[in-house]
Amino acid sequence: MAHSFRAKPAVRLGEIAELIGATLKGDADILIDGIGPLEDAGPGQLSFVSNSRYASLAASCQASALIVPPALEEVSLPCLVCENPYSALARVAQLFAAPSTLPQGVHPSALVGEDVNLGPDIAVGPLVQIGQGSSIGSGTVIFGGAYLGNNVTVGGNCTIYPNASILDDCVIGNRVVIHSGTVIGSDGFGYAQDESGRHLKIPQTGIVQIDDDVEIGANCTIDRATFGRTWIQRGCKIDNLVQIGHNVVIGEHSILISQVGISGSTTVGKHVILAGQVGLVGHINIGDGVRVGAKSGVSNSVKAGQDVSGIPAVPHKEWLRNSAGIRRLSKQREELRQLRMRIERLEQQLSAAPSAPESQEIF
Amino acid sequence: MAHSFRAKPAVRLGEIAELIGATLKGDADILIDGIGPLEDAGPGQLSFVSNSRYASLAASCQASALIVPPALEEVSLPCLVCENPYSALARVAQLFAAPSTLPQGVHPSALVGEDVNLGPDIAVGPLVQIGQGSSIGSGTVIFGGAYLGNNVTVGGNCTIYPNASILDDCVIGNRVVIHSGTVIGSDGFGYAQDESGRHLKIPQTGIVQIDDDVEIGANCTIDRATFGRTWIQRGCKIDNLVQIGHNVVIGEHSILISQVGISGSTTVGKHVILAGQVGLVGHINIGDGVRVGAKSGVSNSVKAGQDVSGIPAVPHKEWLRNSAGIRRLSKQREELRQLRMRIERLEQQLSAAPSAPESQEIF
Amino acid sequence: MAHSFRAKPAVRLGEIAELIGATLKGDADILIDGIGPLEDAGPGQLSFVSNSRYASLAASCQASALIVPPALEEVSLPCLVCENPYSALARVAQLFAAPSTLPQGVHPSALVGEDVNLGPDIAVGPLVQIGQGSSIGSGTVIFGGAYLGNNVTVGGNCTIYPNASILDDCVIGNRVVIHSGTVIGSDGFGYAQDESGRHLKIPQTGIVQIDDDVEIGANCTIDRATFGRTWIQRGCKIDNLVQIGHNVVIGEHSILISQVGISGSTTVGKHVILAGQVGLVGHINIGDGVRVGAKSGVSNSVKAGQDVSGIPAVPHKEWLRNSAGIRRLSKQREELRQLRMRIERLEQQLSAAPSAPESQEIF
Repeated sequence: MAHSFRAKPAVRLGEIAELIGATLKGDADILIDGIGPLEDAGPGQLSFVSNSRYASLAASCQASALIVPPALEEVSLPCLVCENPYSALARVAQLFAAPSTLPQGVHPSALVGEDVNLGPDIAVGPLVQIGQGSSIGSGTVIFGGAYLGNNVTVGGNCTIYPNASILDDCVIGNRVVIHSGTVIGSDGFGYAQDESGRHLKIPQTGIVQIDDDVEIGANCTIDRATFGRTWIQRGCKIDNLVQIGHNVVIGEHSILISQVGISGSTTVGKHVILAGQVGLVGHINIGDGVRVGAKSGVSNSVKAGQDVSGIPAVPHKEWLRNSAGIRRLSKQREELRQLRMRIERLEQQLSAAPSAPESQEIF
Repeated sequence: MAHSFRAKPAVRLGEIAELIGATLKGDADILIDGIGPLEDAGPGQLSFVSNSRYASLAASCQASALIVPPALEEVSLPCLVCENPYSALARVAQLFAAPSTLPQGVHPSALVGEDVNLGPDIAVGPLVQIGQGSSIGSGTVIFGGAYLGNNVTVGGNCTIYPNASILDDCVIGNRVVIHSGTVIGSDGFGYAQDESGRHLKIPQTGIVQIDDDVEIGANCTIDRATFGRTWIQRGCKIDNLVQIGHNVVIGEHSILISQVGISGSTTVGKHVILAGQVGLVGHINIGDGVRVGAKSGVSNSVKAGQDVSGIPAVPHKEWLRNSAGIRRLSKQREELRQLRMRIERLEQQLSAAPSAPESQEIF
Repeated sequence: MAHSFRAKPAVRLGEIAELIGATLKGDADILIDGIGPLEDAGPGQLSFVSNSRYASLAASCQASALIVPPALEEVSLPCLVCENPYSALARVAQLFAAPSTLPQGVHPSALVGEDVNLGPDIAVGPLVQIGQGSSIGSGTVIFGGAYLGNNVTVGGNCTIYPNASILDDCVIGNRVVIHSGTVIGSDGFGYAQDESGRHLKIPQTGIVQIDDDVEIGANCTIDRATFGRTWIQRGCKIDNLVQIGHNVVIGEHSILISQVGISGSTTVGKHVILAGQVGLVGHINIGDGVRVGAKSGVSNSVKAGQDVSGIPAVPHKEWLRNSAGIRRLSKQREELRQLRMRIERLEQQLSAAPSAPESQEIF
C-alpha cells in the first residue's frame, strides 16, 4: 500500500512489558512504532500469537517482537509473555492508535443553542448542531455534521462521529462511542388501527437512555420509548446497522453483532450475545448469558444461560440435530422406499404361504 | 430516572373523555399531565388497559385514571370507558406529545436554492439544504442537516428529521414523516454485464413518489426508479432500516417492519404486513391483505389474503406443519430404525419357516 | 404523473444506432428525448425488448422506436437491432441521464482543511467538510453535507452523494460512486474480554481501500481494518444497507445485493454474487464465481464456482432437494404410519401362524 497509515509514536519494548504486566524476553530498548498481524508485521512492529496453532507463522514472522502465551515463550523473536495475549494486545494497541484529531473548543461553524452546558476540554467540530438545553460532559468529542437535539445529555469522554443524530431528550452516559450515521431517539413504531384499517400514530413520548461505556456502530437505529425509556445498559457493544425498537432494554455487557433487529418492549439480559442478522420478536425476555446463533429468529422468551439457534430458535444442540436431520432427508426417503419394498415382499411371501393369516381376512 | 421528560401541559379528565368519546366514571376535574404504562404510571398520569388479562395490574396501578374497555369498567380508579382503548390512547397521547420545537421560518444558516417555493408556516432548521426548483408545502417542518435536492416537491404538514436526504426530483405528499438518516431517491441497483463480466451502470432516471400520510423510519433506503417511479402509496407505515428497490410499488396502508428488503419491480398490495427482516425477490406481486411472517424469504407471487412464512415462503399453516416435522426428525429417525428391526425380524422368521416363500425366489 | 422528470436533450435515432453499433430499421431522423419501459413509453421515447416473451407488448407499444434482439426485428415500430439490448440500453440511457447538477468549484459554505489537494474540474457542494491533508482527484463531485475526514484520498471522476461519511485515512479510487448516508471507515467491531466479562476495545488502526469503478449504495457501512486494510477491489457493485466488517477483502467485479452482511477477515473472490440479506461469518474464503442464494448464511469456506444456499449454506442443488424433503415431511409421516400398520399386520399374521418362528423365541 502506497499510502501512509495513521502516525504513531515509538515506544520501548520494556515500557510495553510493564504496561501489560508481561514477562520480557529480549532487549528492553527495542523501539516499537506500531502493531501488525502475524503475516504482515515488519521491523519496528509488535505482533501477537494467541494460539499455539500459529506457532509456525510466529517462527517466520518479520516483526521486532511478539506478544505470546506461556506455551509459546520459546519463540525465536524477542517476546512479551502473558496469559491473555489478545487482551494485552487491546491495551498495547491503544498506545499506537492516533484517534482522529479535532482541535479543542467549539468550531465557529457549529451551532450551539441557548442554555447549553459545555464541559471543559470538549471538542465540537464544524457544522455540529447542539439544541437548546443540552449538556455535554468534559472531554467529549463531537465530530463534524453530528446533530444533537434539544435537552440532550451527553456525559464525559464520549465520542460522537460525523453525521450521527441524537434526538431530543435522550441521555447518554460517560465514555460512550456513537459511530457515523447512527440515529438515537427516532420514533418507536407504534400505531393503532382504526375501523377502516388506517394506522393512527401513537406519539412516542419517551426517550433513549444509554449508559456508560457503551459503543454503538454506524448507521444503527435506536427508537425512543412510547413512554419511559429504551435503555442500553453499561458496557454493551453494538455493531453496525442494528435496529433496537421502542422500550427495549439491553442488559450490561451484552454484544449485538451487525444487522440484529429487536422488536419493541423485549428485554435482553446481561452478557448476552446476539450473532449477526438475528431477529427478536417483541415483548419477550432473553435471560442473562444467552447466546443466539447467526440469522436466528427468536419468537419466545429464552431462559438464562441457554444457546439457541434457528427460525424459530430452539436450543442450539437441537438445531444442530434438526439440521443434520434435514441433510439426511434424501437418504431417509430412500430408506423408506427400501423398507416399503421389503414389506411388500414379506406381504407377498405371506399371502403365497398356504397358512398365511392375511388370507383369513378375506373370509 | 433523574432527567426530565418532554414538558406536557395538564388537561382535565372530562375534556379527555369528550375528545375520545368515552364514558367518564369519576371526577371530571382530575388534572392529567401525561401518559404512562400500567406498571409505572404515577399520580397525574393517565394509563390504559386494553386487555382483561391485565386487570390485576390495573387494580394496583398508581395512575390518576385509566382508559378501559367496558369489561373492566368496575376498576377501582377513575376511568374512561371505551370500545378501543388502544386507539383512544393514540389520540390522547397526541395531547401530551410535545413535538420537537423548531421556530417558524428559515434558519439563517439554511441554504435555499433559486426558484424554491416555500409555503406559509414552515420551519426550516439550521444547515438544511434545499436545492433549486424545489417546493415545500405549508406547515412542513424540516430539521437541521436534512438535504433536499433540486426539484424536490414536499407537501404540507410534513416532518423531515435531521440528516435525512431526499434527492433530486422526488415527490412527497402531505403529512408525510421521514425520520433521520433515511435516503429517498438513491440510484436503483441496475447494471448490464458486458462480455468480460464487468458491470455497466444503467442510469436510474426515474423518481420516488411518496403519497399522503406515509411515515418512513430512520436509516431506510428507497431507490429511485430506472424509468418512471418507485411508489409508496397513501398511509403506508415503514419501520427503520428498510430497503425498497427501484420501481417497487407499495399499496395503501401497508406495514413494513424493520429491516425488510424488497427487490426491484415488485408490487405489494394494500393492507399488507411484512414482518421484520422479510425479503421479497424482484418482479413478483404480493396481493392485498397478505401477511408475511418474520424473516421469511418470498420468491414467488402471493395471492391476496394469504399468510405466508419460511424460506422459501409457503402458506403459514404449511410452514407450521413443516417446522413441527423438522422438530420430529430425530424421533422419526428412531421410528425408522425400529421399523427396520421389526422388518428384519419378520424376514428372519419367514426365512426360518419351512414353507417361507422367500426361499422360493431362489428357484 | 403530474411532475416533470429530469430534463433530457433530444437525440436522432441514427446517432443512437451508431453509438450502440445497432442496425437501424426505420427513419434515422426520428428524435428521441428519453427512455421508457415497454408498457409506459410514449411518443419521443425509446424502449427496449430483451426477450421474445414480450413480443406482444412490443406490438402495442407507443414508443417512437425500440431496441430489439435479432429475433424480434420484424416488430412494426422503427427499431435498433443488436445482440444485447439490455447492455445497449445501459449505454443509451447515459445519453438521457441528467446527473444531479452541482456547479464546478467549491461552494463558499464548504469547509476545506489545511493542505488539501483539490484537482481541476471538481465540484464541492454546500456544507461539505474535507479534513486536513486530504486529496480529491479531477472531475470528482461531492454533494452537500458529505463528510471527508483527514488524509482521505479520493480519485478522479468520483461521485460522493449527500450526507455520506468517509473517515480519516481511507483511500478511494477513480470513478467510484458512494451513495447517501454510507459510512466508510467506521471502527471494526473488535474487543478482548477481560476476566469479569467486560469488553476492552481493540483500537482499529487500519483503513478502508476502495478501488476503481466501485459503486456503493446508500446507508452501507464499511469498517476500517484492525491493522492494514479492508479492501473493495475494482468494479464491485454494492447495493444499499450492506455491512462489511474489518479486514474483509471483496474481489473484482463482485456483486453484493442489499442488506448483505460480511463478518471480519472474510475474503470474497472475483465475480462473486451474494444475493439479498446473505450473511457470511468471519474468517472464511469465498472462491471466485461463487453465487450465494438470498437469505443464506454461510459458515464455511466455499470453493470457486459453487452455488450455495440455505442456513447453514450447502450446495444449491442439495438445498433444493432438502427444501423439497421438508415439504414432503407430512406426507412422509403418513407413509411411516402406513408402513407401521403393515408391519403390525405382518407380525400378527406370523404370530397367528402355527409355525411362526417368532414364537420360537419364547423357548
